[in-house]
Amino acid sequence: MIKNSYLATAMMVLPLAFGGVASAQTAAKKPNIVMIMADDVGIWNVSAYHRGMMGGSTPNIDRIAKEGALFTDYYAQQSCTLPSWNDTAAKKAIMAFVERVTKQGSPDFVPPAERIATFDNDGTLWAEQPIYFQLAFALDRVKALAPQHPEWKDKEPFASLFKGDLKGALAGGEAAIFEIVTVTHSGMTTEEFEKIVRDWIATAKHPKTGKLYTEMVYQPMLELLAYLRANGFTTFIVSGGGIDFMRVFAERVYGIPREQIVGSSGKLDFELRDGKPVLMKLPELNFNDDKGGKPVGIQMHIGRRPIFAFGNSDGDLQMLQWTTATTPTPSASGPMTAPPRSAASTRVSTRQKPTTGSSQA
Amino acid sequence: MIKNSYLATAMMVLPLAFGGVASAQTAAKKPNIVMIMADDVGIWNVSAYHRGMMGGSTPNIDRIAKEGALFTDYYAQQSCTLPSWNDTAAKKAIMAFVERVTKQGSPDFVPPAERIATFDNDGTLWAEQPIYFQLAFALDRVKALAPQHPEWKDKEPFASLFKGDLKGALAGGEAAIFEIVTVTHSGMTTEEFEKIVRDWIATAKHPKTGKLYTEMVYQPMLELLAYLRANGFTTFIVSGGGIDFMRVFAERVYGIPREQIVGSSGKLDFELRDGKPVLMKLPELNFNDDKGGKPVGIQMHIGRRPIFAFGNSDGDLQMLQWTTATTPTPSASGPMTAPPRSAASTRVSTRQKPTTGSSQA
Repeated sequence: MIKNSYLATAMMVLPLAFGGVASAQTAAKKPNIVMIMADDVGIWNVSAYHRGMMGGSTPNIDRIAKEGALFTDYYAQQSCTLPSWNDTAAKKAIMAFVERVTKQGSPDFVPPAERIATFDNDGTLWAEQPIYFQLAFALDRVKALAPQHPEWKDKEPFASLFKGDLKGALAGGEAAIFEIVTVTHSGMTTEEFEKIVRDWIATAKHPKTGKLYTEMVYQPMLELLAYLRANGFTTFIVSGGGIDFMRVFAERVYGIPREQIVGSSGKLDFELRDGKPVLMKLPELNFNDDKGGKPVGIQMHIGRRPIFAFGNSDGDLQMLQWTTATTPTPSASGPMTAPPRSAASTRVSTRQKPTTGSSQA
Repeated sequence: MIKNSYLATAMMVLPLAFGGVASAQTAAKKPNIVMIMADDVGIWNVSAYHRGMMGGSTPNIDRIAKEGALFTDYYAQQSCTLPSWNDTAAKKAIMAFVERVTKQGSPDFVPPAERIATFDNDGTLWAEQPIYFQLAFALDRVKALAPQHPEWKDKEPFASLFKGDLKGALAGGEAAIFEIVTVTHSGMTTEEFEKIVRDWIATAKHPKTGKLYTEMVYQPMLELLAYLRANGFTTFIVSGGGIDFMRVFAERVYGIPREQIVGSSGKLDFELRDGKPVLMKLPELNFNDDKGGKPVGIQMHIGRRPIFAFGNSDGDLQMLQWTTATTPTPSASGPMTAPPRSAASTRVSTRQKPTTGSSQA
């Protein structure tokens, strides 16, 4: 289930009025009104209106238009901005910031190519409780792979996992998590891994809500992504999560394409396997996109400093610092708290001057 | 000097004819024709034509239109495709491939989001003789930094460099080059490095032609980049050159933005320097984007397999193999030679079936 149906462009009502040039035989009748409801098309998809400016031809509608009349005026209601957000200082600050950086002639105007917005994922775009969703994936994979690894029965962290003792399994700290992630995220090609994640994400359910994990996303943040993109921003994920894991669903769920995802990764090796080139996922960390790694990942992948950044944890602090420390004009603003209605403690950070009443600087 | 002025969208001639609704006082006169020449605007920038569909209002032109007549038909000459290319099999193969993958309903149709084209840089987009341009930059930097490093006088590869003996300096092979690159590409922040490259690239001249290095680019390849983008492709550089080095000029010279550049890099470290966050360039290789590294870099940065790839050396072979080995449909085509008029031995690789007469399969 994709939750961003609100992203659809405004539904178009295409009215063609008859009777503008009433013929003799219809003069006595009441005028007919034909309403054609259509989704994701505009007035310029009808050749009676685009008149050759666009591709595509609609001869039947054109004939109706020719026999009738063309509309020359219309009114379209603007779709509501951030409808799930309460009318708080955070929402006002976001909208004021977007207006400042997008308005031609504004002293804070930023050209579209430089309107980079970066978003943490876990706890920012989707939930992260009771455990990181990617860890849930890894635990499910450990169970699926167990028959091939009888030696795991007596080996931590797997032994505890099989007893259902997650706390015991994770008692080994980061080393235990690294072990679990390594055995489930390496030893296959990138394409094989993608299929495994695709199958899991299509079926695995959140333990508390019973929903798909891709449904456990914050509606206000989906609206924020769409709002920023509609204002010329490019939206990137910058997450400690695995880059190959997120790419499987981020485009569909968030509208963020694969090349706009920055994340943690394992090393890859290019090999010819039976003469066919493959990329093997190696059991070795390539990049940890967390804490100070986030500004590094931003530089590596984007090469521009964001002007807007969003996160919810200590691991995002450095990204927020990097975003707010403008060169050459230092920003007076520190991170400001801007919790949307259902996304707790999301931090909103801009490198522009703070909007009155909305910063903690 | 930007050499891609041909990129400008078709110049628009906006004719407004008078006399369509001739008034009594003008009936005796010849009709007036007003030609308004404008660049980079279209018919839909005039509100008499967009009628509220687009933003912007042109009341004076609208008044002229209202008093006169609106045009309902037009003919616009398509701008010339790949004008610097000779009419060879290579050009035909490229255009046939682009038509196949972009034509709705074609069995080889590829959605725009998947139209990834990757280009090597040295020897493919700009020249690479007599030495790699980035090495020329590094040698100039060694000279500039020499006063701060008296110890270099007796140390190779620097000692030979100062004697003007490049061959002797490079006798140390890759280790010598690594040493030269390291001392010139680390020990400063990313922003400091960007300024150094910006200053150099604005003034340094090619030793044989006396032109700026950014003028030593292949016109046919600039046309190819523009042609592909006009057909919905996203164009990426995938080069063994330094990612931070290329980002300084690639957007201006090639129209390729920073986030669409994949290259070699050194490690970065996020630090607070006097309370200000910086990214320090460390004297340690992070990623070598050459040979098998190219498919790895493509996966890391783009996350999609290209459908079109261009290179000129052995270091590009793996990228071409990766591009042509389609999954699940294996491609029958190997790389094919497609030299544009002034770019020697550029290899053109597609993952679709070869076009008749243009492959070496």
